[in-house]
Amino acid sequence: MTERAHPRLELPQLLVEQAVQAALAEDLGLAGDITTDSIIPPEAMGEAAIVVRKAGVVAGLDLAEAAFKALDAEAVFTRMVDDGGRIEAGGAIAKIKGRTRALLTAERTALNFLGRLSGIATLTAAYVAQVDGTGARIACTRKTTPGLRAFEKYAVRCGGGINHRFGLYDAVLVKDNHIAAAGGLKAALAMLSARGGHMVKIEVEVDTLDQLADALRFPIDAVLLDNMDIATLQKAVALAKGRVLLEASGGVSLENVAEIAATGVDLISVGALTHSPRNLDSSLEWAAAR
Amino acid sequence: MTERAHPRLELPQLLVEQAVQAALAEDLGLAGDITTDSIIPPEAMGEAAIVVRKAGVVAGLDLAEAAFKALDAEAVFTRMVDDGGRIEAGGAIAKIKGRTRALLTAERTALNFLGRLSGIATLTAAYVAQVDGTGARIACTRKTTPGLRAFEKYAVRCGGGINHRFGLYDAVLVKDNHIAAAGGLKAALAMLSARGGHMVKIEVEVDTLDQLADALRFPIDAVLLDNMDIATLQKAVALAKGRVLLEASGGVSLENVAEIAATGVDLISVGALTHSPRNLDSSLEWAAAR
Amino acid sequence: MTERAHPRLELPQLLVEQAVQAALAEDLGLAGDITTDSIIPPEAMGEAAIVVRKAGVVAGLDLAEAAFKALDAEAVFTRMVDDGGRIEAGGAIAKIKGRTRALLTAERTALNFLGRLSGIATLTAAYVAQVDGTGARIACTRKTTPGLRAFEKYAVRCGGGINHRFGLYDAVLVKDNHIAAAGGLKAALAMLSARGGHMVKIEVEVDTLDQLADALRFPIDAVLLDNMDIATLQKAVALAKGRVLLEASGGVSLENVAEIAATGVDLISVGALTHSPRNLDSSLEWAAAR
Amino acid sequence: MTERAHPRLELPQLLVEQAVQAALAEDLGLAGDITTDSIIPPEAMGEAAIVVRKAGVVAGLDLAEAAFKALDAEAVFTRMVDDGGRIEAGGAIAKIKGRTRALLTAERTALNFLGRLSGIATLTAAYVAQVDGTGARIACTRKTTPGLRAFEKYAVRCGGGINHRFGLYDAVLVKDNHIAAAGGLKAALAMLSARGGHMVKIEVEVDTLDQLADALRFPIDAVLLDNMDIATLQKAVALAKGRVLLEASGGVSLENVAEIAATGVDLISVGALTHSPRNLDSSLEWAAAR
Amino acid sequence: MTERAHPRLELPQLLVEQAVQAALAEDLGLAGDITTDSIIPPEAMGEAAIVVRKAGVVAGLDLAEAAFKALDAEAVFTRMVDDGGRIEAGGAIAKIKGRTRALLTAERTALNFLGRLSGIATLTAAYVAQVDGTGARIACTRKTTPGLRAFEKYAVRCGGGINHRFGLYDAVLVKDNHIAAAGGLKAALAMLSARGGHMVKIEVEVDTLDQLADALRFPIDAVLLDNMDIATLQKAVALAKGRVLLEASGGVSLENVAEIAATGVDLISVGALTHSPRNLDSSLEWAAAR
Amino acid sequence: MTERAHPRLELPQLLVEQAVQAALAEDLGLAGDITTDSIIPPEAMGEAAIVVRKAGVVAGLDLAEAAFKALDAEAVFTRMVDDGGRIEAGGAIAKIKGRTRALLTAERTALNFLGRLSGIATLTAAYVAQVDGTGARIACTRKTTPGLRAFEKYAVRCGGGINHRFGLYDAVLVKDNHIAAAGGLKAALAMLSARGGHMVKIEVEVDTLDQLADALRFPIDAVLLDNMDIATLQKAVALAKGRVLLEASGGVSLENVAEIAATGVDLISVGALTHSPRNLDSSLEWAAAR
Repeated sequence: MTERAHPRLELPQLLVEQAVQAALAEDLGLAGDITTDSIIPPEAMGEAAIVVRKAGVVAGLDLAEAAFKALDAEAVFTRMVDDGGRIEAGGAIAKIKGRTRALLTAERTALNFLGRLSGIATLTAAYVAQVDGTGARIACTRKTTPGLRAFEKYAVRCGGGINHRFGLYDAVLVKDNHIAAAGGLKAALAMLSARGGHMVKIEVEVDTLDQLADALRFPIDAVLLDNMDIATLQKAVALAKGRVLLEASGGVSLENVAEIAATGVDLISVGALTHSPRNLDSSLEWAAAR
Repeated sequence: MTERAHPRLELPQLLVEQAVQAALAEDLGLAGDITTDSIIPPEAMGEAAIVVRKAGVVAGLDLAEAAFKALDAEAVFTRMVDDGGRIEAGGAIAKIKGRTRALLTAERTALNFLGRLSGIATLTAAYVAQVDGTGARIACTRKTTPGLRAFEKYAVRCGGGINHRFGLYDAVLVKDNHIAAAGGLKAALAMLSARGGHMVKIEVEVDTLDQLADALRFPIDAVLLDNMDIATLQKAVALAKGRVLLEASGGVSLENVAEIAATGVDLISVGALTHSPRNLDSSLEWAAAR
Repeated sequence: MTERAHPRLELPQLLVEQAVQAALAEDLGLAGDITTDSIIPPEAMGEAAIVVRKAGVVAGLDLAEAAFKALDAEAVFTRMVDDGGRIEAGGAIAKIKGRTRALLTAERTALNFLGRLSGIATLTAAYVAQVDGTGARIACTRKTTPGLRAFEKYAVRCGGGINHRFGLYDAVLVKDNHIAAAGGLKAALAMLSARGGHMVKIEVEVDTLDQLADALRFPIDAVLLDNMDIATLQKAVALAKGRVLLEASGGVSLENVAEIAATGVDLISVGALTHSPRNLDSSLEWAAAR
Repeated sequence: MTERAHPRLELPQLLVEQAVQAALAEDLGLAGDITTDSIIPPEAMGEAAIVVRKAGVVAGLDLAEAAFKALDAEAVFTRMVDDGGRIEAGGAIAKIKGRTRALLTAERTALNFLGRLSGIATLTAAYVAQVDGTGARIACTRKTTPGLRAFEKYAVRCGGGINHRFGLYDAVLVKDNHIAAAGGLKAALAMLSARGGHMVKIEVEVDTLDQLADALRFPIDAVLLDNMDIATLQKAVALAKGRVLLEASGGVSLENVAEIAATGVDLISVGALTHSPRNLDSSLEWAAAR
Repeated sequence: MTERAHPRLELPQLLVEQAVQAALAEDLGLAGDITTDSIIPPEAMGEAAIVVRKAGVVAGLDLAEAAFKALDAEAVFTRMVDDGGRIEAGGAIAKIKGRTRALLTAERTALNFLGRLSGIATLTAAYVAQVDGTGARIACTRKTTPGLRAFEKYAVRCGGGINHRFGLYDAVLVKDNHIAAAGGLKAALAMLSARGGHMVKIEVEVDTLDQLADALRFPIDAVLLDNMDIATLQKAVALAKGRVLLEASGGVSLENVAEIAATGVDLISVGALTHSPRNLDSSLEWAAAR
Repeated sequence: MTERAHPRLELPQLLVEQAVQAALAEDLGLAGDITTDSIIPPEAMGEAAIVVRKAGVVAGLDLAEAAFKALDAEAVFTRMVDDGGRIEAGGAIAKIKGRTRALLTAERTALNFLGRLSGIATLTAAYVAQVDGTGARIACTRKTTPGLRAFEKYAVRCGGGINHRFGLYDAVLVKDNHIAAAGGLKAALAMLSARGGHMVKIEVEVDTLDQLADALRFPIDAVLLDNMDIATLQKAVALAKGRVLLEASGGVSLENVAEIAATGVDLISVGALTHSPRNLDSSLEWAAAR
């Protein structure tokens, strides 16, 4: 059992139940698992392990466990690693004992959650490793899979990243299109400061140092430096570091993230964490049947 | 406007509405788009285009359109390409005119659907291109994102692939774990043939040529040849081609898929189509505001 | 306790819970069971039996049990017969012990499910008995009660019948209206074979022997012989038996089903199994209160 | 177009939409109508009529119309008869013009609602005809199909019957099991009158004339005379007519209902109206395609 | 533990679960309780008490308990008073032991339900006390908070009041606008008596003694005397007492309710009970942490 | 038509539809509006106005409009005042023309929303007026009605107040119970700063000036000064004004709010705005029927 280094946001259990029920319903339809129900008698019991083919960081065990338990409330799900822990190629993430039907029927639902979320955690951890030793943190964006945002944001935390805002509702981010639609950055920010909620942070996306200078005249909390090259990022840091939080974004890759971090930005956001992770390849290996 | 080569399965419209409503709710929460609502007056009208950064095959336009129209029923959404059509880097997929608030608020929801589904269609098309001229077809699996199966299966069709079963309910697939749990392939198939639904096809997963020979003694429709090397696949084709449908699966990549297809298998299934596509990178480019 | 002859499709438990919750909500509204809550103190315990007035085949015990347990999680529900088993007039299907309020409040919901599904199983068994000894099997159709398809299909299996497709999504059935709308059987089937999913069976409805001959030129799995008289059915069997599965449908009754089966068709489908069964008349008989 | 004799309860439109959406979802699953979508191009338009094979009373046109319009908002649905109207064998209930795909895909959903509800209306009308000229009215019970109670109660009204209570929440009905569980009729009624809601009617089930006499000592609105023979009913009427509403129930059939009505009871309730109607056999006949 | 004087309507448990889940989801969103999850380790256990600042009558304990148990199924919730019981200022309603996270996260949801419902019960009890010794009862109306009607009606009963109809569906109440739209009271009542359900009570709102006289010519159960002064109420009582139930309504306050009751009306309905109660001010006081 | 002084958060339209549908379903049940449907013919058209009995600030017109339009899509709803506008006693908020049945059936649902939300806006405006000229703003809390938070927060904005956090998910607020459970303010804040999301504001509740001094040593955005008397508030302002946002809370009333504001705090939060507003008394006055 790996240890948890720090307190962690929990996945709200209500969301877990709901997502697992919906995913099982999607896979079972009205007729259910017609293969398993034909072959396996209801009373058969079995054991299996979830094994990975490649190394990675695990995320989503609550969902996997809930999938098996939704079909066999007495199933025993034993974690060999915790969410946020690293697993080596060939290693077992968890073992499950219970009704054979439940194990076989829930297998794909459990693995689909676990594979996707662990893929996100693994990719996040790779980015985090690249910026180790710099002060920069790695953050995700709103480029998440529709319906899975809570889980994908959580997977980023499991990989050592932090979350940007969860939606359009919990922070202000004035983006290029707002600026274009409002007729310029100053016009947009002027509108904004006319109202203002006291518990909401404000970030502004800028493309140039001039825009950055304009933005700093307003009471904002953070600036998103969009698609700037290294030299420009360095100047932005020189200009604004310590006055507002500085976030680099756009065109970030595993190859260039360390160089970006070295400019001194506080935060680097990476859409690919949630929109293009590779699934962590895992499978259910059958151990024994009774 | 590209042409559709052949009749296509449509996305059930009821699923589109439901998924879009849920995705917007996830992004809007209780407070809504606090940035846009602060900056943009309700009466402002605007125009924008969805533009891709890389070439690809488009899928998911119905979802994107529904996202904008959910927030502005009068918005005009003009497709520059249809689902299944190819778009070049820098090209525009669609143009939208309507209330500026609706355009800005629905942007991310529309792009999240479109990016993921077009990523799947693009990856599928790449596989399909590799096997062009062989008789083999490319199919997806049940390794889909929970909640999005109907859409991801559709995206595979948009890329020229075909769908395997949609769930546990619409076809029988006897897999390695069923065989292990039942105590062998013959035991499993014997159980199966004792019932049998007349409108349901039956496929069996085999690891070896011996298992294949065993399986062929039962009234089955297809065989999944799991993780076989090229030589073994060739022997399997020699043994069973024309008697049952032959599906190769496991360890398939863009590099080896042509060689696999050349063995004469009927079908090659690729989990990565739906579990690890790269998002088709797209953005909303602002055209004009009134 | 009757024995189960063969493995059986199970009712997906998630559907059971959901249907029972919805049915109880329909019966309880906002005020709940105002009669029982007025008369019976919360702490009262009782016992009752579900007794049938006529003989029949039982189906739906999971739903009945779930109804009582939804209102008293500790209630004990003891089955005197299992789904698919036969019960004689006056016999008890099950006994329930638990809170008196739960027993009285859930009574109607439990019986409404049990009566309808047992009615279907009983009618199916009557048809199955008529064709005993012939090779023909009895199947249901999509003429089910909206919202109850999974349960009604299951009840048909409990009565010894088999299920036709579950919906529009899991098999192709080209019907008269498709043929009319497409401009003829050949046109319709030509469209169809242009795409084709490898895990989906295809059936075609024909009215005449000429249509049957046309249909056999296409790669189809089954033919629905619609409303043919006995002589025509015999010719159809002579023409096509063994090449495709032959299904007789239309105008089937308990009186003529044996004669139809004797023609040699593989399958006889009967809409009335699910659209016009007589409820199996049952009631809750009070045993004792404490 | 038939005329409506008197104002009628309407089906709440919100329930109609919801039920139709759920029924379509049940039939379409994730893949949709794979037959129609393969054969019929999206732009094809068609016309069809809903025709009955036997005479009957129509109920459920709102649901049928909503099914077609859910798939083609521009479809034109023309009623040849209104709910509650009588249709002769071979007659057309309605005509529909619209997208061919919508017509073919919604056909079964529309007919499943219409067939069941018209079956209920037709059976109700047969009972109502039998008691014509007596003062007795025909009522349904809570023995309805789970999920369809609002619609089945409505169908009874379309057939000329009246509704008993809609659920456990809108009227008090003290039944045999309440009496047994409470330790006798007087004990049960004593409990009841201790609370009492001023807008709720109270009915008591009695098996004997002695029980009837006991019940009449309490402030109740109606008595359910359960399974009494004609002679006993006559005595009950002599005893209580005009003091409370008298409802006969149990063992009622088309054969004996007139005789029961002749005893002078106010109301005869018939569970079979909703639990065992014969479907009104209808089909979609194709008229033309463009 | 206070005693319950008489049997009481229970809150349907299914509604409790559903409302609590929805309320928690509203408060937790996708990210959950970010304060508590940051500060409190998952394994920490704690104890707390729900304490009131002012005296009142308690209602809603089932909802409060369900809120804590939804987040910690093993939490122990001990009631110091039952619904309907009176609590003094500073007194504890209940004590809770369980996971600290669950206690802190569910606190507000539990208190929001409890505060509102106890506010209603307390206000109801104040009205009931004012009419003590007269024959008049205090009733609520349909002026309830959308989504909470079942709970608010229950809270009125906890305060000693009775419920008027629960909705538009369970009793007939002909109001001023019906009369205006129908063209007069007689026209409205004539329409009404043309149909009539045997288990539904009928009440008519009248503004004047003339209207009352008109109304009494129809077979109705109750009359709502709208906004009449004391003298007019006395005349109405003289005219109709004992023939129909008499309900006074409109302009009722704690100051004048006793005088209204003294006129001899059977029932006084007060919209303010549910539309404008003061919250019963309560808080969660921390006892100990382990 | 009143003018809108500043940009306003909009109510997400999706939430409006959903809440109105649920509220209508709660009021209509399965049988619908049995009074109106009996008395008013379906084709009747009418006009009515929503009129208030007392002066106030309006909020919730979108919900009222949606209620009428849900039952008559062609109804015309004309606003005489906009949300946030003031209405005098006897004034009309809006006029509605449409089907008489729709107007009468939706009346209570529309008024229940409008009355509660306008009550909140009116109470908020009264507090805002009291602090006019000071720099203090009035904010609401999470003491909202379960299920209505989005609407009640919106109503506060309509009254000129601002919103505190919307839930547990969008800002950190370390309260007394967190501090107690963590073993002191410093321990709690130390835990907190170990993680930290960059787009989330942090507020800490303090009871004393010592706690305030402790809190100021941590990187926080705001301090909630709980239940402090005026003198202590003045000292807190002297100590911390300008360093963090200062919020006074606890024991605030219309009588003392001006004095609290005069201390120089930035913000005063008032639970009563949403937990104990008086309904704005309004009714539907019938104008004419056709």
